[in-house]
Amino acid sequence: MSETVVMSASEVSDFLDEVFPQIHQRGRQYAIEDITPGAARLRYSAGEDNLRPGGTVSGPTIMALADLAAYAVILGHVGRQALAVTTNININYLRKAGPGDLICRARLLKLGKRLAVVDCIITTDQDEDAVIAQASATYSLPEARKA
Amino acid sequence: MSETVVMSASEVSDFLDEVFPQIHQRGRQYAIEDITPGAARLRYSAGEDNLRPGGTVSGPTIMALADLAAYAVILGHVGRQALAVTTNININYLRKAGPGDLICRARLLKLGKRLAVVDCIITTDQDEDAVIAQASATYSLPEARKA
Amino acid sequence: MSETVVMSASEVSDFLDEVFPQIHQRGRQYAIEDITPGAARLRYSAGEDNLRPGGTVSGPTIMALADLAAYAVILGHVGRQALAVTTNININYLRKAGPGDLICRARLLKLGKRLAVVDCIITTDQDEDAVIAQASATYSLPEARKA
Amino acid sequence: MSETVVMSASEVSDFLDEVFPQIHQRGRQYAIEDITPGAARLRYSAGEDNLRPGGTVSGPTIMALADLAAYAVILGHVGRQALAVTTNININYLRKAGPGDLICRARLLKLGKRLAVVDCIITTDQDEDAVIAQASATYSLPEARKA
Repeated sequence: MSETVVMSASEVSDFLDEVFPQIHQRGRQYAIEDITPGAARLRYSAGEDNLRPGGTVSGPTIMALADLAAYAVILGHVGRQALAVTTNININYLRKAGPGDLICRARLLKLGKRLAVVDCIITTDQDEDAVIAQASATYSLPEARKA
Repeated sequence: MSETVVMSASEVSDFLDEVFPQIHQRGRQYAIEDITPGAARLRYSAGEDNLRPGGTVSGPTIMALADLAAYAVILGHVGRQALAVTTNININYLRKAGPGDLICRARLLKLGKRLAVVDCIITTDQDEDAVIAQASATYSLPEARKA
Repeated sequence: MSETVVMSASEVSDFLDEVFPQIHQRGRQYAIEDITPGAARLRYSAGEDNLRPGGTVSGPTIMALADLAAYAVILGHVGRQALAVTTNININYLRKAGPGDLICRARLLKLGKRLAVVDCIITTDQDEDAVIAQASATYSLPEARKA
Repeated sequence: MSETVVMSASEVSDFLDEVFPQIHQRGRQYAIEDITPGAARLRYSAGEDNLRPGGTVSGPTIMALADLAAYAVILGHVGRQALAVTTNININYLRKAGPGDLICRARLLKLGKRLAVVDCIITTDQDEDAVIAQASATYSLPEARKA
């Protein structure tokens, strides 16, 4: 697996602002904190409207964070590929999280010519050992790319 | 499996309005069209801010629809249980969908004492044979419930 | 989706005997009963050595049946492609099954140029409404294929 | 999460021999190498009859290893609970593996009163960085257990 970083966290962030402005529609909730070989780290500030009954962060909010983190780590290693698309996500919800900041650590398990598979671990920023959710995401990569 | 409907589509809809008002935060995009033995049917009107690069409905939007449909079919068969929580979702994204109405058909695969498993098929309302996404969702049910 | 059957159940069965003789290593437990547009039906005779603690059919046995059924329905629609490979399986175990015959109904959700996604429902042959397990399987198809 | 080991690798191994002798039906292919807080490590010697077309280890073989490793790490932390049952497995197949020894590292993501979720990474013993498959497994725990 090529684990060479080709776009930094700020370059991926600028690229997302350009091609995917919708992610900031409720304000700037996402930040790409770091892209390192084979990995990315994102922060998400959950607000009131991300809560579900019981006052905890909603499942779709957490899944959206995992999906974005997977996209970010792939972009960081393949470059500007807006059209990489998610083909599968599997997510296990393990603990509840109240309002506050979530951290998602994404790790490339495979970066092939046609598919990339990413493992995502979501925690709060208060305790990065207590896993809130674990997800694996598969992206299909456009044909042009060379592995 | 008990497939007796205990709450109608409009009763589930009213219950969601009460316990889960956040789902309408961008306007009334969701409608529970039908709850029948073992099944539910929901409609979702995707808007501009549900799109991702390429102009198609975003993955988290579709996943949120599947999650809500699973919740609705469970509520329809177990009654007022706001605290049923998702423990796992697996979703396969199969085709792109442009802006417009999505339909989600949810079907109870199992309704046990502790877990319920629901299969969800998402299509557009223009072609209910072309599957946009397929998901399976597992919910954990509070202890008090009697199967 | 092309739902034209290009290999019959007996042709797929003969092809599997040729390229995948290992599936019969414990005797002929699998039979492909039918391949119809977009679907396949397999039968599996679980024996003593497929049981796990509690006397029920083991999870890997059921997963192997789902995987083979997915392979069979794909072969039935794309022809002789021994090298199609599984990239993901998600399986929900819903009910226990004692020794006896299992039925797996596989249904093509998508048959693309590069990926095929199949939904599998496993029951006993005594009650095809009580779902033992539900699986979704993704196969990657070799480049040469034309969708 | 309680990460206290209550059964050692050899105790879990003896317990499996007692309650689950079927896993050795083709000879002793599995060995539990280690159980440490929150984790287990298993070795599997794939033989000729675990191969599929193309000469690589079959998907169900790898899935069975992940399932057993998840069971082993749970037993190591909850004690003699033969009737813990798998409710969900999601597995991503990432690289091919020829005949030889596979290693599965299993890690408890959650050990609750009712559910345990385990992450499994499968590699060959030649290169523990190149992931052959990643799986997450959910087990349902019998009521009696106290978390």
